[in-house]
Formats: sequence, structure tokens, C-alpha cells
Amino acid sequence: MAVGQGVVTTLKPIKGVRIGVASAGIKQVVRPDVVLFEMVEQAAVAGVFTLNAFCAAPVHVAKEHLAKSSADHASQRYLLINTGNANAGTGEQGMLDANLCCDEAAKRLNVSASSVMPFSTGVIGEILPSAKIVNVLDDAIANFQEDNWLQAAAGIMTTDTRVKGHSVSFDYNNETVSITGISKGSGMIKPNMATMLGFVATDAKIAAPLLQQLLTQASDKSFNRISVDGDTSTNDSCMLIATAQSNVEISEDDQALLALFKSQLDELMLDIALQIVRDGEGATKLVKIQCDKAASVQEALDVAYTVAHSPLVKTALFASDANWGRILAAVGRSGVKDLIVDDLQIYLNDVCIVQQGARAQSYTEEQGAAVMAQQEITIRIVLNRGDVNDSVWTTDLSHEYISINADYRS
Amino acid sequence: MAVGQGVVTTLKPIKGVRIGVASAGIKQVVRPDVVLFEMVEQAAVAGVFTLNAFCAAPVHVAKEHLAKSSADHASQRYLLINTGNANAGTGEQGMLDANLCCDEAAKRLNVSASSVMPFSTGVIGEILPSAKIVNVLDDAIANFQEDNWLQAAAGIMTTDTRVKGHSVSFDYNNETVSITGISKGSGMIKPNMATMLGFVATDAKIAAPLLQQLLTQASDKSFNRISVDGDTSTNDSCMLIATAQSNVEISEDDQALLALFKSQLDELMLDIALQIVRDGEGATKLVKIQCDKAASVQEALDVAYTVAHSPLVKTALFASDANWGRILAAVGRSGVKDLIVDDLQIYLNDVCIVQQGARAQSYTEEQGAAVMAQQEITIRIVLNRGDVNDSVWTTDLSHEYISINADYRS
Repeated sequence: MAVGQGVVTTLKPIKGVRIGVASAGIKQVVRPDVVLFEMVEQAAVAGVFTLNAFCAAPVHVAKEHLAKSSADHASQRYLLINTGNANAGTGEQGMLDANLCCDEAAKRLNVSASSVMPFSTGVIGEILPSAKIVNVLDDAIANFQEDNWLQAAAGIMTTDTRVKGHSVSFDYNNETVSITGISKGSGMIKPNMATMLGFVATDAKIAAPLLQQLLTQASDKSFNRISVDGDTSTNDSCMLIATAQSNVEISEDDQALLALFKSQLDELMLDIALQIVRDGEGATKLVKIQCDKAASVQEALDVAYTVAHSPLVKTALFASDANWGRILAAVGRSGVKDLIVDDLQIYLNDVCIVQQGARAQSYTEEQGAAVMAQQEITIRIVLNRGDVNDSVWTTDLSHEYISINADYRS
Repeated sequence: MAVGQGVVTTLKPIKGVRIGVASAGIKQVVRPDVVLFEMVEQAAVAGVFTLNAFCAAPVHVAKEHLAKSSADHASQRYLLINTGNANAGTGEQGMLDANLCCDEAAKRLNVSASSVMPFSTGVIGEILPSAKIVNVLDDAIANFQEDNWLQAAAGIMTTDTRVKGHSVSFDYNNETVSITGISKGSGMIKPNMATMLGFVATDAKIAAPLLQQLLTQASDKSFNRISVDGDTSTNDSCMLIATAQSNVEISEDDQALLALFKSQLDELMLDIALQIVRDGEGATKLVKIQCDKAASVQEALDVAYTVAHSPLVKTALFASDANWGRILAAVGRSGVKDLIVDDLQIYLNDVCIVQQGARAQSYTEEQGAAVMAQQEITIRIVLNRGDVNDSVWTTDLSHEYISINADYRS
């Protein structure tokens, strides 16, 4: 199940990025499961990573290689991604395996090992079948081409039912700047700094420090605002590449251009983040939880995530039941200090359902049912305590979520 | 579904407490749904109540009447409980209805309104059918008897599939001290100060301040350590009555007797709290999450509740899948500062499943499967950061939970 249509059929290549895809047979079904990104020498690259204390071996190695290759001004750099095995909870052996894959790729590509950053996703706690990955490195290299983004999006999927990606572009001084990104993720989704996996590239020229800042800010408004089940993965990573192959440089020197680029990047990142929510395990609805007029961002997020994670709210959404009592109970336990319940309002889309601590006078069950019949719904909680508005996106909780997670060893 | 057998068939009467049960037809099915407790004049009474900011009208009124009747040294006092309607999210009208029920009961019982404490449980957000309750007050009064605890336990049920109650007693100086308690609850269970509803009485003599202290401490080790779905109810309340009808007085003057009484009360409260978890909506397993060697109680509870609320851990438990990777990922996101993953161990019952950040060398899938085949399981996380041990109890997450909550307007 997944919400809406929105199937991605084309993704725009980004000059300076080539991608190779191969099938290593990590899972029993043979399918593309190894993806290798190559960036041109001039490319800058930034990354954000999971804050889970049990972060996976490849996350440790990718962070280290990102820092080292940036400091060394490495020439071509590579992202080596496998699905089917997360190489998480694998201790010392996991580090050896992640490094082995980088070493073997580096040997074939004639670069140093720190020029290769590894990413893994899939089952936790199984030893990475590194020999299988090494076996198909030559296949992936032979497959290098710029127009392989859709294949890459398919090659990083786990329980995803759809490929996820988006392209945007804008013109500036008769030059076109393009951004393309892909992501994967469906369950264990409450990213903390980044999604399960996201890879975004632009042909603009952007210096590494600014690139990192742009990625962090865009993640905070996209991947860090979504939750399917509240479970933060051990492998969340998102990388942003700027290949410098167009003639446009984004920098602090041109604030208008910077703002334009930022808005495009933010739009793209939110788009591929919401594709993850739409494809959330068992999802039948995409639900925006918007908390308005909060005293602080933390307060707004506490309220929004408490509602987003409430199993009772989520099962009511699955049942298309406008059960405002459950929303109200979740807001009431969200930990907002000295909350005056008579002061707040709750809306389903534009329909006011709660005011003065009770069902709104004007509200009818028919109004609630009409909103609930839709696939995309906004629950808006107006606290009237300050001037901060913030939002998170989530799904309902369905039988299919239980089936997927009671059957799948992830 | 519910875990284990453990059906309650007898509950010991407590001298000084009489109970009347009646059927008001609050829900469509006619069943006992109004329960009236009468306490003798000498009885002391204590209460703990939900911390949900949206607490229900009866919670406001019960707190106020408890304080006023204690200050006034009221003679007989009464607890008036209805199921089928929570009188929560009902604003000003809800307060009028709760007070009306107390007034009408007080008139018939010839006491002041503040001698009657109201409790409601059931659907949130519907106006309380107070006339139906008032109509059967005479029936409830006519039904007063000491041996009505089982009927009362049935009369306060909502989605519960079992009555919940327990009795304990001990001898002291040739006198017997007894304690009997009942509870209700199945979903929206993460009590904060108390369970959905609990009513406990003893025939010992205990002054009100000490009684309140004993109740608060016992709640903290029982009702405040359980969670079915992490959703804190708007109506949680637990009352403890001491009727002073036995010749035993519990006070600070006899520390050995006080400790004995405390251990009996704690045992009873934990028993009726765990009956709620065993009957958790859709539960097929009772799971104790024990966090040992934490640096603080807060840290132990953060870890334990993060694991207890993880949908991925709960669905794995439903599937009897010893998916330790999901437990590890939940511990990793629980917010423990500077957690060194190599230092901790995770056990399923006595089987070590994780050490040094990876699957324990000695662990086999057969060991995990053998534990998972049981209905009652302990997940023990040893942090090795301090000397605090604490535990919470929870259930798995099953298809039946979804069915119950997608169908039931609560």
C-alpha cells in the first residue's frame, strides 16, 4: 500500500556524476543491490548522519572518509551503497567489512580508500556478505553512466514499494542549474539528522562549508520532520554533491541566487522526504501534523510528534474516523508546561473540531468524515502560546504495517 | 486476546466498604455500568490522578471533593463510577454533568455533594448521559453489600476482556489485615500517576497523609510502570481506602508493621496493574523491560520506555521473532547521553543476545526462539553506567490491536 499515485518515471542526470548499478545477490532474489556513485574531481560533498548511538559501521567509515578526503583534496570520490544488509550491530567485524569494500573499490578505481564512502541498508545484525559486493564492483564500474538515477533509486530500495526521486532546475544568467535526488525508506523512519538514505547532486559550484550548511538546513525542514513509526534507524545518511559542472557558483556573495538555490533544494528534499512517508509501511494516508502559535520550536515538535506517534490517533486515521478525542488526549500528554486547554483549537484541514476544551459547537460528524475520506490530511493544533509554527508528516497505522513487520527480519 | 489464564473468581470483602451496582444503559448493550462505593465514617481515602492536561471533568471534581470532604471530616463518603462514557473533552457541560451526578447521589444518601467523588471511563468527547445515571442511583443504593467486588470489577470494564482484581491478607497480633483492589484498562494505557481506574481498600486504620504517601509510592512501582500503547488517558485515577474496621493501625510508630503492609500493598497494586497489561488490547505477550545499571531512574525509564513503545520491537514480539537488532536500534535512539555501545549487554530472559555492539558470540537463534515461544518474556538491558535498576511492563503489537482501535470510537 502507498498513498497517492506519484510514481517517478524520469530523473534528470547531473553533469559530473556517473552511476553504476550491479546485482550482487545479497538477498535471495537477484535484483540490483549495489550502487556506485562517481563524482568529478571538482565536486564538493556534504553529509548528515543518524544520531542513533548504535550507528552502523558504514556510518562511522563514511564520516571518517568524508572528512579525510575533503582535507586531502581528493580527486574523484565515490559513494558505494548496498541494500539487503545494514552492516549494523556487527561490531568489529562490521568495521572490517566496511573498510574492505572501500579498499577493494579504491584499488579498482585507482584512488585511496578514503575516497570511497560506504552506505548500507537492510537487515540489522547480520554479517555483511562483503565478498559478494566485491565480486560485482567491476560490473558496477563497467555500468557507469550519467543517466542511471532511476536505476540507482531502484537499487537502494528495501521494503520500499516505489522508487523515490525528484529533479528540479532553474535558469540563471542563461545557464541552467539542476538538482536531482533519490531516497529510500519505508519503515524504521524517524530520521534524526537525515533519512534512511538520500543522495542528492547538483551541477552548481558550491564550496564544501556552504554545501554542508545548505544540506543541514534542508534536512531539518524535510527528513528531520517525518516519521512513520518513530523508530530512528542505525543507518540514516544523506549526501549532497555539488559537481561544479555548470557555470553557476552559489555563494554568500550573491544572496538572491543563494536564496533561489536554497528554495529549490528545500523543495526537492521535502519532496523526496514525503515520498518516503507516502510509501510508509502499510500507509493509506499522508498526514501533516501542524502545530501553530507555539512558544518554541521544541514545544511545537513535542506536540506534533506526540500526535504523530500516538497508536490511537494512527489507528483512527486508518479507520477514517475523525476521533478528535484521541488527538486531544495526545496533545494533553505531550508535556507542554501549564497548557490551558480552553485556549487551544484543533482543526482537520479547515474544519475546527475542538475549541474551549470540547468539540467545537459548529462541528458535525459529516464535516469530519469528509476530511477523513481524503488520502492527504492536515491536523492543525493551534496552541495560542507564542508565534512559532512547525510541522511534521506521518502515516496511519494499518494491518499491513503489522504484517510487514511481523514477517520481515529487518 | 489476553496473556495467560489468571481469571479472577473471588475477591475478599473489606469490612467498612459496601458496593452497589446498577445498569443504566449508557451503552446500547444493557450491562452493569454504574458502581457506587460506600465507605464507613471512620475511613480515610487517598487518590492519585492523571497528569494529562486534558483531564476529564470527573477528575477535576473528584480531586476537589476529596480535598473538601477530607478537610470537613465528612461522615460516609462515596465513589460514583460509570463506564461507557468518559465525560472528557466535554468542556463546561462536562463539569455540570459531573456535579449533577454527585448532587443527586448526595441528596439520596443524605450527605453533602462533596462527599461523593465521581469517576468516568469510556468514549471521549460525548456528552455524559447524566439522566440515565441519576435514574439508577436508587437501584445502586438498594444493591449495597460488602461482597460485591467482582460485580464492581465487571461494572467498570470498557474494552477489557477480563475482570481485574486481587486480594491479599496477613495476620498481625491475632488480627487479620486484608486488602482488596480492582482495576480496569486495556488500551490508552500509559498511566501517569495512576491507571485508567483502580479502587483499592483495606480494613486497616491508616491516617490520610500516610495513606496518600503509601498510594503514591505503590502507584509509582505499579501503575506508573506499565504501558500498552504509550497513550496516557484523560481519566486515570486510583483511590485507596482505609476503613479502620480491623484493630490494626498502620503508622510510622511501628516500622516493621508499616513495611509489612507496604509490601502487601505493593504486591497487590503490581498484580492488578499487570492484569491490565495482560489484557492489553490485542496482547499475546506480557513483556518486562528491565534496564539495569543505569546512571539514574530517568535514564533507566527512558531506555525501557523507548524499547517498550517501539512499534518494530512490539511487532517482532508479536511474531515471536528474537529480532535483537530492533531492540538495539531502540536503545540507541533512547537519548542516553554519551552511550558507549560496546559497554552494554542485552538479554532475553537469561540468554545474552548482544554484547560489544554486536550479537553475542554464544548466542544462537534456537536460544532466542525458545524464549520468544513463551507468553511472558523479560528483555533486560544492562547499561553498565551506574547502579540504578528499573523496569516497565508492556505488550506486543498485534493485528487485533489495530482491529480494536480502528473499529472502536473511544
